[in-house]
Amino acid sequence: MEFTFYNPTKVIFGKGKISELGKEMAFVKKALLVAGSGSIKKNGVYEQVAKSLEANGVEWVEVWGVKPNPTLAKVREMIEVAKKEKVDAILAVGGGSVIDASKTVAAGVFLEDVWNAFEGKAIVKKALPLFVVLTLSATGSEMNRGAVITNEEEKKKWSFVGEALFPRVSIIDSSVQATLPKNQTAYGAIDGLSHVMENYFVGKKEETTLAVDEALMKTMISECDKLMANQNDEDARANLAWALTLALNGISGVGLKGGDWASHGIEHAISAFHTRIAHGEGLAIVFPAWITYVHKNNPETFKRWAENVWNAGTVEEAVKKMKAKYAWWGVATSLRRVGISEAEIPALAENAFQSGRVGQVKQLGKKDIEEILKLAL
Amino acid sequence: MEFTFYNPTKVIFGKGKISELGKEMAFVKKALLVAGSGSIKKNGVYEQVAKSLEANGVEWVEVWGVKPNPTLAKVREMIEVAKKEKVDAILAVGGGSVIDASKTVAAGVFLEDVWNAFEGKAIVKKALPLFVVLTLSATGSEMNRGAVITNEEEKKKWSFVGEALFPRVSIIDSSVQATLPKNQTAYGAIDGLSHVMENYFVGKKEETTLAVDEALMKTMISECDKLMANQNDEDARANLAWALTLALNGISGVGLKGGDWASHGIEHAISAFHTRIAHGEGLAIVFPAWITYVHKNNPETFKRWAENVWNAGTVEEAVKKMKAKYAWWGVATSLRRVGISEAEIPALAENAFQSGRVGQVKQLGKKDIEEILKLAL
Repeated sequence: MEFTFYNPTKVIFGKGKISELGKEMAFVKKALLVAGSGSIKKNGVYEQVAKSLEANGVEWVEVWGVKPNPTLAKVREMIEVAKKEKVDAILAVGGGSVIDASKTVAAGVFLEDVWNAFEGKAIVKKALPLFVVLTLSATGSEMNRGAVITNEEEKKKWSFVGEALFPRVSIIDSSVQATLPKNQTAYGAIDGLSHVMENYFVGKKEETTLAVDEALMKTMISECDKLMANQNDEDARANLAWALTLALNGISGVGLKGGDWASHGIEHAISAFHTRIAHGEGLAIVFPAWITYVHKNNPETFKRWAENVWNAGTVEEAVKKMKAKYAWWGVATSLRRVGISEAEIPALAENAFQSGRVGQVKQLGKKDIEEILKLAL
Repeated sequence: MEFTFYNPTKVIFGKGKISELGKEMAFVKKALLVAGSGSIKKNGVYEQVAKSLEANGVEWVEVWGVKPNPTLAKVREMIEVAKKEKVDAILAVGGGSVIDASKTVAAGVFLEDVWNAFEGKAIVKKALPLFVVLTLSATGSEMNRGAVITNEEEKKKWSFVGEALFPRVSIIDSSVQATLPKNQTAYGAIDGLSHVMENYFVGKKEETTLAVDEALMKTMISECDKLMANQNDEDARANLAWALTLALNGISGVGLKGGDWASHGIEHAISAFHTRIAHGEGLAIVFPAWITYVHKNNPETFKRWAENVWNAGTVEEAVKKMKAKYAWWGVATSLRRVGISEAEIPALAENAFQSGRVGQVKQLGKKDIEEILKLAL
């Protein structure tokens, strides 16, 4: 077992903690505030942010309109604003899409063409300091060094990483998520479960990480269940939020050689073609099919997952339980349910294969990806 | 639930990784290498360290002889060396005692009297950069911001904390621990279990942390069991080492208000009076008694601990199983077995009470501490 673990992000968690933002950013002269469609004006988050910045003498300019599956075009537009306004920090106020777009801007101001970093043609060495106020727990981006952006022209939903991309400070007040639509909560939980699974299934003898991962998976399921019954359960909301952060801050992958990530590659193809499909929804469709297809390549770990997470005697039974759970949470678990037919499979498989995320549990060829997508129909 | 999580230590873990030390320290002109009794010259660690430093042009001076329960006198002596030699970094090569002494030196060069930081009369604002090569997994000091030192004159085994005390880099090559005496491995596991328990038992609704803590406790038990059967089990050694780091790097205490720590206060009194008693051994004696005395103050959490960690129907049964496990690992679980009689209890209770670590599950008075020590007889 070998690994490097490094994560310098400071997380400030709890109700009312947005008020601490300005103090943390006090050294900033002018920040670029990045936001989505405007929900932060409705739930009071924007007001808390503005108040805290003002109280600490931090100036800012704003860019709005980052959408789910954030696009390269939007990011480029924001990089121009950041340069023109000579900001010295980026402040992401939103969920994973806003944070990923912000990370890309933070690094992009120092690169000739930021897309080169996604293509592996440029290395990210520096970035503007990044601050985060999280409004939707799901991607874990608030405490990691990666970002995913969609290049719409080339239909590539790809990622890049760099140590400079760790947020300096992330504030998580999970109580602001109580007003989210129910399906957003479920998508978030499925995203987190999928992040843990991408790591976990590579494991064999990494007992500490596997046990922690099982704890995280069980917790995400139990807390999401509680929230489906009562959206205002603040304890469940807080526990789910923290589990989702841990799911992709490095802890869940310790010793697991970078994880598998083929399912994410396949899902990214789906949402690159259909930006209306939420990432969590796509994962709910792909993951059960991927497990069914590959589990015999690492049978002991899949078996302990079935037993320890789903209390199931076989992997097949566990997959059935997982799909039933996702369905109970109101999430589709088949391609047809989101309007994708068999005819599209070759193009999706081709796109996923091009991403290079072909997996570790089993290295997938294009034919394998097609078979998985057929299982997902 | 509210908390701040921040841990910037970079952990480099794996066989042969000591060779990466010099590269990480390349900016250092002259380091103070702090070591214990000389075991690192026998197990090859010193040679690997020296080779890596030389290859990267890092000079160093050495101080040897840090003992378990490191003393203030020894720390003061080392601070003088650090000042005289004008070192710009500290390198701890050893276990928790060496690391804690090194942290105290790193901060102490900037303080008029470092003991003031332990008494709460001085605040640690800066410290020399600290690097660690870990040779004994137990205390978790390799990835946290605290240190424990014994003031022998005043019979005070006390701790201090500060963000400047986080090691910059800790290298953990757990394979070098294969030659440890068996009881050191067991003491390490008991230390880690105790760190998790100090946090866990404060919990009520912090489901994510409680589940992770249970995973860590179960893993420490299973991996220590494997090592008692086969000291050369490298996977078990690596998994135990990482679990022990996680046990006190902040993760196990998220949302738990700083933990309880009364048992540590009581143990510190024992080892302040009897420096021959290992910290892990003292904890094996105190913790079962403390649990027996306080569990009715947070019954649901103690009950889930009994069920989920020890597969026991009652707390009493779990305590019995824990003591049997520790005994099977070759560790004493009563005061009499380490030569402490009832006559000493009032003095020990007085000392523990003075430390101010009186607990959160139940705030202990001097009489309570005496009762716990009687249960530990």
